Amino acid sequence: MYVIVVYDVNVDRVNRIKKFLRRYLTWIQNSVFEGEITPADLEEVKMGIREIIDEDEDMVVIYRLPSSKSLNREIMGVDKSGSEEII
Amino acid sequence: MYVIVVYDVNVDRVNRIKKFLRRYLTWIQNSVFEGEITPADLEEVKMGIREIIDEDEDMVVIYRLPSSKSLNREIMGVDKSGSEEII
Repeated sequence: MYVIVVYDVNVDRVNRIKKFLRRYLTWIQNSVFEGEITPADLEEVKMGIREIIDEDEDMVVIYRLPSSKSLNREIMGVDKSGSEEII
Repeated sequence: MYVIVVYDVNVDRVNRIKKFLRRYLTWIQNSVFEGEITPADLEEVKMGIREIIDEDEDMVVIYRLPSSKSLNREIMGVDKSGSEEII
């Protein structure tokens, strides 16, 4: 399956969630990751997110698709996804 | 068709792009909009984005799908989409 993960978390947790998601997915831009993922890894991702976020303050949206075949991605402006800064 | 729009723009332009996208789509969380859109409206959205952003500094990603049928959205943490703050 294919997922797009977008998060809106307190600045104190931004680096932690970014570092965690990078283990499973590709960084696209500030607060956005995507990639092909197995159901087992997706469960791990959700567990990890639950451990990192404050559920009363932060929000994470996981968009799930059967595959990326029907998904078209268009980038406007700078494509930052190829040149990720090191944190 | 169905779109998810995520943006990473300079803070000077955040309110402008948010206000603009809200005319066409539903605000989901910080920097994320989504919704059903016609091809004509999507063209308007792209033109509007091009006018607002600085193409050397800002980045906008438009994910396009034939429909939302194959898209599953899961929210973790606070669901902010129902209680949008007024800007």
